[in-house]
Amino acid sequence: MTIREYIAATAEQVDQALDSMLPPDTASPATIHQAMRYSIFAGGKRIRPVLCIAAAEACGGNAATAMPAACAVETLHTYTLIHDDLPCMDNDDLRRGKPTNHKVFGEGIAVLAGDALLTEAFAMLARLPENASYSVADYVRELAEATGSRQLIGGQVLDLEGEGRQLTIEELRAIHNGKTSALLTAAIRLGAMSAAAASEQLAALTAYGQNLGLAFQIIDDILDITSTPETLGKSIGKDEQAGKATYPALVGIDHARQEARDLTVAACKALDIFPEQQRTRLLALNDYLLNRNY
Amino acid sequence: MTIREYIAATAEQVDQALDSMLPPDTASPATIHQAMRYSIFAGGKRIRPVLCIAAAEACGGNAATAMPAACAVETLHTYTLIHDDLPCMDNDDLRRGKPTNHKVFGEGIAVLAGDALLTEAFAMLARLPENASYSVADYVRELAEATGSRQLIGGQVLDLEGEGRQLTIEELRAIHNGKTSALLTAAIRLGAMSAAAASEQLAALTAYGQNLGLAFQIIDDILDITSTPETLGKSIGKDEQAGKATYPALVGIDHARQEARDLTVAACKALDIFPEQQRTRLLALNDYLLNRNY
Repeated sequence: MTIREYIAATAEQVDQALDSMLPPDTASPATIHQAMRYSIFAGGKRIRPVLCIAAAEACGGNAATAMPAACAVETLHTYTLIHDDLPCMDNDDLRRGKPTNHKVFGEGIAVLAGDALLTEAFAMLARLPENASYSVADYVRELAEATGSRQLIGGQVLDLEGEGRQLTIEELRAIHNGKTSALLTAAIRLGAMSAAAASEQLAALTAYGQNLGLAFQIIDDILDITSTPETLGKSIGKDEQAGKATYPALVGIDHARQEARDLTVAACKALDIFPEQQRTRLLALNDYLLNRNY
Repeated sequence: MTIREYIAATAEQVDQALDSMLPPDTASPATIHQAMRYSIFAGGKRIRPVLCIAAAEACGGNAATAMPAACAVETLHTYTLIHDDLPCMDNDDLRRGKPTNHKVFGEGIAVLAGDALLTEAFAMLARLPENASYSVADYVRELAEATGSRQLIGGQVLDLEGEGRQLTIEELRAIHNGKTSALLTAAIRLGAMSAAAASEQLAALTAYGQNLGLAFQIIDDILDITSTPETLGKSIGKDEQAGKATYPALVGIDHARQEARDLTVAACKALDIFPEQQRTRLLALNDYLLNRNY
């Protein structure tokens, strides 16, 4: 199975699980359930759940036991997109070519749909099996820390506060770590925890996730400047127009490319403690996510 | 100790616990932590945490073991107030005489402060002790169900959708049950669960909470019409001005008063399974909350 086939097959399983775990859109009140499902099934690539399941497999687990964690991280990710798109935040009308949640359902319902998805994400964690090393309390703490006011939400705060002003590279790194790496790393860690990962496995996967997450975001910054709308599949120069700092703007394009390459190598190297067979898929995912023309 | 003294002493303990469980307002980014603490310490009466702890005590538990649940329900309640006050929801500038969160910190930060408090509420549940009957998974499921899209958030959706249109009494009851009873009942149930309540105790306390919650909201509706600003301590006729349906408007003031009295009696009666000594405080709380001049 190629890595693309693996991603497609896993994303399909995740979609089915999300469909069965979320309330049906006929549940009362119908509006909120339609709004929740609209954004959940709006074409996300399911990168976080795929990483979650691949990490579980690398630690001897499987998709079935990791699935509630995979769905929880995707559900949580979707709430952040809905709230980030609001007029009082990034004020986006389109996401992946479709009208954003508040454009379809109104701002009030969009706020509530985000709230409801955040709530569902924690309910999903309660379905994860406990093992000798990790309990539901550990899963809840893991997700809450990664996505709370010090990490994911903190990153969005720094992003809001930084608009239109010159950031330092440390500030930009804190924004990227909060907005991208934190949840991506939590996805990987939750998958590993559901498979009763040994502590050195968990530490290695944490380093893998942090390096992968930051590299992914730096490459996004580079592509926002160097790419054409045709190859990127979305409008370019958006960060600059929004008055947002980017990696290449702060350190120069060559330095940004070098840092992305260094992080990519570091993400791979972190997996050295795993036997060849167990790390193959995570290496392929790293390559798939980071090997873009930047 | 009078019931007022009990409430004051318990609320003080809850305030101390909230202060120690929430990130300090010096944590980075400072803005979000200041915004979270601004609304948490804005003068709430701590009714839900007091009910939570009193329910734990009625089942043989104590304030110390129930405290993470008490703080979780108050933290969750605070997030709902911040989001309900937003311009895209009820658009309120003042709450308890103070500027609402978004008037002080801006809408973007207010949305994120609500999100962060919702996240913290689940993290707090992970601190609750497990017992022979209830686990952290049970606590998480309990809070997520009561406050998710079918109950608390669902009530807010019905409320938003009902503005300016004639509601049926069933619709208004669904709004009150979602917006008020659901979390109030969850507070009581979580307290009881932390004390390893027997299933008949939990059932009795559920009935107590549901009756108390609906009675409380009907009385609020009545006072909004019949009271003076001086006795109520806030502006009156607010619901009517906002085009919101109220109980007395739908069924008449006499019928509304009768239903409030019936629910009050039912709340007390539900406690009959508890020995005299164990139910005294919950009866006094019922009396304190519902014995207003309506």
